[in-house]
Amino acid sequence: MIPNTNYNNLKESYLFYHIAQKTKLYLEEHPEAHLYRMGIGDVSLPLCGEVIKALHKAVDDQGEKSRFHGYMPECGDPELRKIIAEYYKKRGVGLSQEEVFISSGASDELGDILDLFGRDKTVMIMEPAYPAYVDANIIAGNKIIHIPSGEKEGFLPLPNESVTADVIYICSPNNPTGAVFNYDKLKQWVDYANRTDAVLLFDAAYEAFIEDEDVPHSIFEIEGAKNCAIEICSLSKTAGFTGTRLGYTVIPGALKRNGMSLNEMWIRNRTTKTNGVSYIIQKGGAAVFTEEGQRQIRERIQVYKNNAKVLMDALDQLGIWYCGGKNAPYIWMKCPNGMGSWEFFDYLLHEIQVVGTPGEGFGACGEGYFRFSTFGSPEDTKEAAGRLVKLLAR
Amino acid sequence: MIPNTNYNNLKESYLFYHIAQKTKLYLEEHPEAHLYRMGIGDVSLPLCGEVIKALHKAVDDQGEKSRFHGYMPECGDPELRKIIAEYYKKRGVGLSQEEVFISSGASDELGDILDLFGRDKTVMIMEPAYPAYVDANIIAGNKIIHIPSGEKEGFLPLPNESVTADVIYICSPNNPTGAVFNYDKLKQWVDYANRTDAVLLFDAAYEAFIEDEDVPHSIFEIEGAKNCAIEICSLSKTAGFTGTRLGYTVIPGALKRNGMSLNEMWIRNRTTKTNGVSYIIQKGGAAVFTEEGQRQIRERIQVYKNNAKVLMDALDQLGIWYCGGKNAPYIWMKCPNGMGSWEFFDYLLHEIQVVGTPGEGFGACGEGYFRFSTFGSPEDTKEAAGRLVKLLAR
Repeated sequence: MIPNTNYNNLKESYLFYHIAQKTKLYLEEHPEAHLYRMGIGDVSLPLCGEVIKALHKAVDDQGEKSRFHGYMPECGDPELRKIIAEYYKKRGVGLSQEEVFISSGASDELGDILDLFGRDKTVMIMEPAYPAYVDANIIAGNKIIHIPSGEKEGFLPLPNESVTADVIYICSPNNPTGAVFNYDKLKQWVDYANRTDAVLLFDAAYEAFIEDEDVPHSIFEIEGAKNCAIEICSLSKTAGFTGTRLGYTVIPGALKRNGMSLNEMWIRNRTTKTNGVSYIIQKGGAAVFTEEGQRQIRERIQVYKNNAKVLMDALDQLGIWYCGGKNAPYIWMKCPNGMGSWEFFDYLLHEIQVVGTPGEGFGACGEGYFRFSTFGSPEDTKEAAGRLVKLLAR
Repeated sequence: MIPNTNYNNLKESYLFYHIAQKTKLYLEEHPEAHLYRMGIGDVSLPLCGEVIKALHKAVDDQGEKSRFHGYMPECGDPELRKIIAEYYKKRGVGLSQEEVFISSGASDELGDILDLFGRDKTVMIMEPAYPAYVDANIIAGNKIIHIPSGEKEGFLPLPNESVTADVIYICSPNNPTGAVFNYDKLKQWVDYANRTDAVLLFDAAYEAFIEDEDVPHSIFEIEGAKNCAIEICSLSKTAGFTGTRLGYTVIPGALKRNGMSLNEMWIRNRTTKTNGVSYIIQKGGAAVFTEEGQRQIRERIQVYKNNAKVLMDALDQLGIWYCGGKNAPYIWMKCPNGMGSWEFFDYLLHEIQVVGTPGEGFGACGEGYFRFSTFGSPEDTKEAAGRLVKLLAR
C-alpha cells in the first residue's frame, strides 16, 4: 500500500517549530534570560467570567442524569446556531440558523472543508499567508497559485482577471500582516469570484478586532457574497478560546456549484464524519454572545489593542514602515537596514530577548518583514517596545 | 468550479435519520405513547464523579491567568498521552506516548484518518458495518470491497487470500453485531495484512465491554500488529463521553508503508489541520484513567451489561438466534418468522413501542436481522424485554 505521497511535498519543518527550536537553544545557552514572546498568536488572558459560569453549569449538567446530554447534533447545538445567526443579524447580515455550523475551531475547519471541493482543484492563496492554508492543500494534492503581495498595495492584492482558481483564500483582518480589506476591495473579490465561478474561503478569525467603519466584519456584508463565499470564524482570539476550542462556519443556502448545494453537502459531511462538538464547550461558547459576555470579551480585546498601540507608537517613533495593529492583533513591520526575516529574528532574540515571527515563514514575499503578535502581557509588550526603540534608534 | 461529485454517490438518507422520521411520525399519530428507545447507541448515564470533578477544576484553570491554557499540543496533552500509554501497558502492550494521539472522538478520527492514505485506495469493509465507514470512503472516492458475513461464521468473516485491499476496517467488539474476534481470528487478519501490505483500521470503541479472556481489547495484543494496524478508540461508550467528545488513536512508530512512517505523517497532519483538543475535555478524559475513575466507569458499564443480560434472557426464552451482548453493548438478533429488518422495525414500533435498528441499514447482509442497543435505562429495557417476550411468544 502506498500512502498519501503528497506528504513528501511538504517542507520539512513548520515555521513555529523552527522558532521554538531557536528559542529553546537560546534558553539552554542563557538559562537566566527572560524572553519577551510576541511570536505565536496565542492569547494570554483567561476566559471571561460569563463563559466560566456557563462552562461550570454545563459540566454540572453532564453529571446529572436528568440534565445529561449525549450525542449533540452533528452540525451544532440548534440554540447556539440560532444565537450566532442573531449575532450576524445585528450587523445587518440575515442568515438562517441552518446556514451556521458549529466547529471545533477555525484551523480544524479550514482543513476539513477541503472535503467539499474534491480532487485536482486549483486554489489561490494570497501571500504572506497562514502556513496551514498551503500545507492542507499540498496534502490534498491541489494545485496552488501563490499570489504574492507587498508594501506597494499595502499587502492587499486585488484580483487579476487573467488568473483564475476554483477556491480562493481570503483572510481579513489578515494573519500575518494585519492588513484589512475595506468594503470596496472585498467587493472586487466577490464580483470576481462570481464572474469566475470560484468559491471564496473567507477566514474571519480576527473580525472582533476591526475598528474602522468601512471594514466589513463578515464577507456576507458584501452584496453577492452568499453566492460565492464560505466564512470560517473562531472564538480563539475573540474570546480566548485557543485552548478551549470553538468556532463556527457559515455556508449560505444560496451557495451552489455545478447544481450542488455546498450547504447540503456539508450537512452530509458532518453527519458522516463527526458526532458534533462537545456540549460543554458549546454552552461556554453561547455565553460569549450574551450582553454581559460581549462586554467582558471587549474588555479583554481592549488589552490587546493597547498592546498594539504601544508597539505601533514604538515603530512610529523609529520611522519604520508597518501595517496592521489598528484593526488586527498583528503588526507587520519592515525589517530595518535591509535585514532578512530570520536575520532580524536572531538579532532581536540575541540583543533584546524579543521573539517575533519572521515574515519569510508566511511565503517568499514575506522575506524582509517581521510579525509581532499583540496577545502578550501588557508588561512584556511595553518592555519589548522599549527595548526595540533603544536597539533600533542606535 | 465542480465540487466533490462523490457526494452524489451517497445514498439519500442516513439510517438513523430514517428511524427518527418513522418514530416522529408514530408519535404524531400517538401523542400519548411512551417509546422504548433501543435504537441509537447513545448512553443514558451521566459522567462519573471523578470526571465531573476534573472538568470543574479544568474550567477553573481556564478562568485564572496563572493557570490558563492556550493552544494545546496538536497531537494531545503529553500527560494524557502518557496516561493512555500506561493504560495499554497494564494489559501488556508497550507503547511510547508519541504513539498515542488524542482526538475529539472515534467518529471524527475515522473520517480524518483517510488523509493518510491518499487517493484511489481500495478499502475492505466487513458487513454489517457502521454506515460511516462506507460513506466516508464514498466521499473520498475510494473503491469499496464489501465483505458480507452471516450467521454461519457468527458474523466474523476471516480473510480470503484471493481478495486484497489497501485498508481494512475491523470493529471488534462489533457495531452492530456485538460479535468479537478472539485472539486466533484476529491473528489471521494481522498475518494477512502483513502478507498483503494492507493497513488495518481497528475500531476499538467498545473494548471496555469485553469479558472473555481470549478476546483482545487491543489489536496490539496480537504479534505483528504494530507493523500493520492503527487503533481508534473512544471514551464515548467507555465513560459516557458521547456528548463530551474525546478519543485516542494509536499509530505505532513501526507502521511504515512505501518507506513512509504513518506516525510521522499523522503528526504532520495534526499540526497542519488542527489546533489540538480542548484542554478542559482532555483533563476530564484523564480522570477516566485514575483508579477511582476506572472503578466509577466500571459501575456504569455494569448497568449496561445488566441491560444486555435482560435482553439476552428474553431472546433465550424465545429461542431466537442472536449474537453479541456478552462482550459488547449491542445485541444482534434474527428477525422472527422470516420478517425483513424494516418490517420488524415497524412491527415492534407499532405493536409494543420498542425502537431498535434494522440490520439492513448496516449493509445488505444485515437484512433479516435487528440490533438492540443496551445503553437505555434499566426500567425501559426490562419493560421492552417483557413486551418482546409477550409479543413474540404468541
